[in-house]
Amino acid sequence: MKVGSAHYRSIWLENEGRTVTVIDQTLLPFQFETRQLTTSSEAASAIKNMVVRGAPLIGATAGCGLMLATLEDASDAHLRQTAGQLLAARPTAVNLRWALDRMLPDLLAANEPDRFGIAQRLAQSICDEDVHINSTLGNHGLGVLQDIVKSMSDPGVLNVLTHCNAGWLATVDWGTALSPIFKAHDLGIDVHVWVDETRPRNQGASLTAWELQAHGIPHTVIADNAGGHLMQQGQVDVCIVGSDRTTRTGDVCNKIGTYLKALAARDNGVPFYAALPSSTIDWTIRNGLEEIPIEFRPGTEVTHITGVDEDNQPTNVRLTPEGSQAANPAFDVTPSRYVSGLITERGVSPATEKALLALYPEHAED
Amino acid sequence: MKVGSAHYRSIWLENEGRTVTVIDQTLLPFQFETRQLTTSSEAASAIKNMVVRGAPLIGATAGCGLMLATLEDASDAHLRQTAGQLLAARPTAVNLRWALDRMLPDLLAANEPDRFGIAQRLAQSICDEDVHINSTLGNHGLGVLQDIVKSMSDPGVLNVLTHCNAGWLATVDWGTALSPIFKAHDLGIDVHVWVDETRPRNQGASLTAWELQAHGIPHTVIADNAGGHLMQQGQVDVCIVGSDRTTRTGDVCNKIGTYLKALAARDNGVPFYAALPSSTIDWTIRNGLEEIPIEFRPGTEVTHITGVDEDNQPTNVRLTPEGSQAANPAFDVTPSRYVSGLITERGVSPATEKALLALYPEHAED
Repeated sequence: MKVGSAHYRSIWLENEGRTVTVIDQTLLPFQFETRQLTTSSEAASAIKNMVVRGAPLIGATAGCGLMLATLEDASDAHLRQTAGQLLAARPTAVNLRWALDRMLPDLLAANEPDRFGIAQRLAQSICDEDVHINSTLGNHGLGVLQDIVKSMSDPGVLNVLTHCNAGWLATVDWGTALSPIFKAHDLGIDVHVWVDETRPRNQGASLTAWELQAHGIPHTVIADNAGGHLMQQGQVDVCIVGSDRTTRTGDVCNKIGTYLKALAARDNGVPFYAALPSSTIDWTIRNGLEEIPIEFRPGTEVTHITGVDEDNQPTNVRLTPEGSQAANPAFDVTPSRYVSGLITERGVSPATEKALLALYPEHAED
Repeated sequence: MKVGSAHYRSIWLENEGRTVTVIDQTLLPFQFETRQLTTSSEAASAIKNMVVRGAPLIGATAGCGLMLATLEDASDAHLRQTAGQLLAARPTAVNLRWALDRMLPDLLAANEPDRFGIAQRLAQSICDEDVHINSTLGNHGLGVLQDIVKSMSDPGVLNVLTHCNAGWLATVDWGTALSPIFKAHDLGIDVHVWVDETRPRNQGASLTAWELQAHGIPHTVIADNAGGHLMQQGQVDVCIVGSDRTTRTGDVCNKIGTYLKALAARDNGVPFYAALPSSTIDWTIRNGLEEIPIEFRPGTEVTHITGVDEDNQPTNVRLTPEGSQAANPAFDVTPSRYVSGLITERGVSPATEKALLALYPEHAED
């Protein structure tokens, strides 16, 4: 997507794969800066500290981190250790494991001197495929939006509510939940986005608002508390969110607060979709509430927040009384019964195991 | 309640009713300062700018504002005009109208020279009665909490989730939703409170956390997004919120985001109570979603936030990209079907018109 007049991806290889460049998402929307990662531990830190975030981008960054590890020490032991470190950086995102599972066996099967070349090719493919996948799922999601516009009794502005950032910054390009929105806008559909600010890290207010503004899409930032009221008042036509992990039965694990919006959508007859590349589906689990470990992040993400002061200087402020503790679960699970459909690169599926397997028959059990 | 070693109310008359003193709630939890109001327009500004907030305290402040008006110009015209100004300061809180309706007819019926004395007596009664009412409803709410503790299969900590601030700062003393919690803690019940931060104005993170800490009650501040997940995980035994306006049918209008918590409570079998003095009940309306005007506050409350910097200096920071707009509905309506009960000064009532009228028969229609 464009930043100013330049086209960017959120991650790319430079220097023949010896450097991985990413956009520092902790500085947005106030500063646009890139960071160069040259070691596997820098890649793990970038994931852990959320310089990069978003399930697909975390996967791509992990793949690139494993590639950098082959330059440090291409031994089995080091690659396995690095994979473990990368995996521990964010415990919820299944794409992280997916990217490592895709690369590690091929690397271990090759001779050590060949491993960097193979890793470079695989990391680049993971990035390129992510772009293709998100564009494709965006086309399927566009169909969903077009159908909703057709069904509207008073076709005017199409109001979409989204939570967190599942835009191009969360992926290598295009995004997941925002991909259909970019495509709808580009086609001339009059779309307006309600952007949940998404406390505590405010990825909506910072990243989603920034992306939409850069692309010229009308949008309004709201407190996470506001979406239910807007749905009660008929001001939301559809909700689209991303997913960090989806079970084979269609339970959607996504940023904390997603579940509350799904409940409100159901209560008000608003369709609720999750958009995700199939690499986000964890085919090994059926019960999202019981089987997905939920990352607890530091309470300081709740008690403190960073914005810019009057002089546009980034400033961290404390919001709570000294001594009040905070808890910070980072994700929740929306049971499949509240999900109208899963928008994937192979099409839109009801959130059931049977329907998902019809699109992805290779994951059927015997 | 106590602040340090001193006992405070949130509002009181000084100088024989010529001065009304309030705690400046916009400075909490970082600074504890009082403000002296000596004119009716200062009282209206204090309500509008949320120096005072919370439905019962807004009512008490409006009553005091009308009292100050009788000192300025006790004519019918000035008192009616002041009542209109006070009423316009916050359109959602029904207690505002209740307090004015209680005072204005008596004032207009009296001779002008007598009006200040009558106003002073009425304003003082409104304050004193509020304290009595909240203490009484706290006793009824305590019964609810004791029943829940009895029913717990593993009676350990009682986890209560609350939204916004319905503590003593929202009333003249005791609070509404927090009144039963103060009483339970004082009785030795092992209670822990999940405090929704309550964006955008963070009354939970600032005021509720401050009150609970001052009283020594264990509590944990959470992002508003987190409550659904905590309920899914069985970590919430009961939700108690306040109310800014309740219909005669039991629909509860309260701080934006309350409705989302009520949905999650229902989905997870968690009881959901609203605690309110009966002055908060608007007996003239039946349908909260259609009949309660929802105040939209400035978008800057979403795009900017105030905390304290490293040097403990209050600092306002911007959270969103320049140019991104925000919308800020301040309240939502929780339909009565999601409310387990209404805790009032006459007892705990199911959220139905029939049950409410059994407690308040004087409001039955012919």
